[in-house]
Amino acid sequence: MINPETPVRELGERALLKHLRSRVPSGPGVEIGIGDDAAAIETSPITLVTTDCLVEGVHFLREWAPARLVGRKALTVNLSDIAAMAGTPRHAVVSLCLPPDLPLWWVDGLYDGLLERSAETGVTIVGGNLAVSISQIVVDITLLGQGGDKLMRRSGAVPGDLVVVSGALGAAAAGLKLLAQGARLDEDGFLHKTGVWTESSARAVTHCLRALLDPNPPLAFSRALAEQDIVHAGMDLSDGLSGDLRTLCDESDVSAWVDAAALPVDGAAASLERARGGDAASLALHGGEDYQLLLAVPPDRLDALRDVAVIWDIPTTVVGEFAPGPSALLLKKGGSLLPLTAQSHDHFRARPATGGEPATRP
Amino acid sequence: MINPETPVRELGERALLKHLRSRVPSGPGVEIGIGDDAAAIETSPITLVTTDCLVEGVHFLREWAPARLVGRKALTVNLSDIAAMAGTPRHAVVSLCLPPDLPLWWVDGLYDGLLERSAETGVTIVGGNLAVSISQIVVDITLLGQGGDKLMRRSGAVPGDLVVVSGALGAAAAGLKLLAQGARLDEDGFLHKTGVWTESSARAVTHCLRALLDPNPPLAFSRALAEQDIVHAGMDLSDGLSGDLRTLCDESDVSAWVDAAALPVDGAAASLERARGGDAASLALHGGEDYQLLLAVPPDRLDALRDVAVIWDIPTTVVGEFAPGPSALLLKKGGSLLPLTAQSHDHFRARPATGGEPATRP
Repeated sequence: MINPETPVRELGERALLKHLRSRVPSGPGVEIGIGDDAAAIETSPITLVTTDCLVEGVHFLREWAPARLVGRKALTVNLSDIAAMAGTPRHAVVSLCLPPDLPLWWVDGLYDGLLERSAETGVTIVGGNLAVSISQIVVDITLLGQGGDKLMRRSGAVPGDLVVVSGALGAAAAGLKLLAQGARLDEDGFLHKTGVWTESSARAVTHCLRALLDPNPPLAFSRALAEQDIVHAGMDLSDGLSGDLRTLCDESDVSAWVDAAALPVDGAAASLERARGGDAASLALHGGEDYQLLLAVPPDRLDALRDVAVIWDIPTTVVGEFAPGPSALLLKKGGSLLPLTAQSHDHFRARPATGGEPATRP
Repeated sequence: MINPETPVRELGERALLKHLRSRVPSGPGVEIGIGDDAAAIETSPITLVTTDCLVEGVHFLREWAPARLVGRKALTVNLSDIAAMAGTPRHAVVSLCLPPDLPLWWVDGLYDGLLERSAETGVTIVGGNLAVSISQIVVDITLLGQGGDKLMRRSGAVPGDLVVVSGALGAAAAGLKLLAQGARLDEDGFLHKTGVWTESSARAVTHCLRALLDPNPPLAFSRALAEQDIVHAGMDLSDGLSGDLRTLCDESDVSAWVDAAALPVDGAAASLERARGGDAASLALHGGEDYQLLLAVPPDRLDALRDVAVIWDIPTTVVGEFAPGPSALLLKKGGSLLPLTAQSHDHFRARPATGGEPATRP
């Protein structure tokens, strides 16, 4: 038993690798797992590959997010990408950059979350890399998945398709504001501090913090949609509806309008935002980190969509319509159509150390 | 045409992604490349996966390594891992963490090297991720390869097998010392400054700097060895012979001895090291970053090894022998056998900002 306060520098790369390797179970399709020059896995004819990372001070702060939840989320953001292609996640490699003074318990907490989320979603960790960094933790995961016969692309939306989103939007963005106000979850995902909020708001606060720190994207839903030819195009909502819709329009060479009144604003986020006099619709439009699906659905497939949504218990909402290109966004508000500027998060422009805070550029 | 001095912060994530995407060509087996939620590639029944990263201040310094060479090396260290499994590299994803003030020309230089090395080795870049970091550049690559019927494992060496290394050792470690003494390569890999060395040593200096900054591992050789059942086990030499041999012994549950007199010390490294009164054999034993192969060859397959080595023009040297376990290393020097302590680089223990400098622990 190693003292959990041991800094990774003192433990050394070799001992840490051995320790982590002993924690990672094997799984289906793994010919060679951790410990060789490369992993060897069984693959289907089409393999999906995605990579996404969480950087300390940019995507998370150690004071704001327990290590276990960072581990869960590091895998989840990649799971969301594989789901958004209508694929099945299979195998992951985990590349860590760790500051030398980081205690072992933090790395173990991260792996608690990684292993738990892997087990929940049928993913096996098959390899990785350990490197030292000067100051920031970087958790970089590459996830491989199995692609079915039909993939969900970002291109393929046509004028007349409906703009549909899954789930509710804005809770993660509200969660980020709550973190800044001192609200905290413990490593089990329970509310630890409400920050400036009273106990009566505990349920809403917990909900929004969880939406940000431990997102739960619909993973199997898009496979059903692709198999049944229900969508022309789709992607996951990670940067915020306005930015992601712009991306989908770019890739499909169409434009789109969104009805502000139709947005499925998260109820908890809406009530917290109302209490502070803010605009919850703006969180839903621009907030980001929702990890829901943005879909282009032909009108004659809307009933089929609703049938599948009932089976998977995923709320879906028509929020607008695609129109002929070139790529542009409009917002229907009151009776008029206004230009909608994508205000999504841009990592390179936002100030660091705030998580997914939306950039406030004009 | 974007001004190459533009910092990535000013350019923004979206524009940088678009710019890089326009530079990356498609390739064989790519169903969906950069630009969707995940890439989709054609895969064989067994896929090899490896991930390795270069961290600024740890694996490279911007003043020491031109961006183009960092790009080449970031792919090469992964190519070496796929080769060490007797696989064929196919597709890569590139995850970058970039400080916001990094100028575009640095990222473009990195991609010059990445794309050039990809083209040389039949690899296609199919996706990646861009994130901002506070201060350090991190280039994290996951490389997928095709595994043949026979893979080269780290386990499988048996007592009596010969310890064989490919190529010459110690040049990269000498190159690191040269960088510290002010010697520099330009982005085309030509000698730019000799540092404290006179012009007469230019050839040796260039050779050692290139060995460190632009390594050239034998990529196809191990496939031939595996196909013809010439090796029982093998791995790439990245951490230094002593450390890597210890790892191979651990994985195969054997011990080994190495003959100091038999080590294929790189000629240029030896001459530079002699001139400063140092011990070149120590560089070959502990230096690291050689990216050659360490092999366990049954004695009755030595002739077959040499036949294949001639075809691929790869020098091979018998440097010792595997013996019954438990894992331990001995060094034959003069007439006696001494315990050999693995002194290879440990990222977490070494002081940062020196590249692959061997840790000087007892």
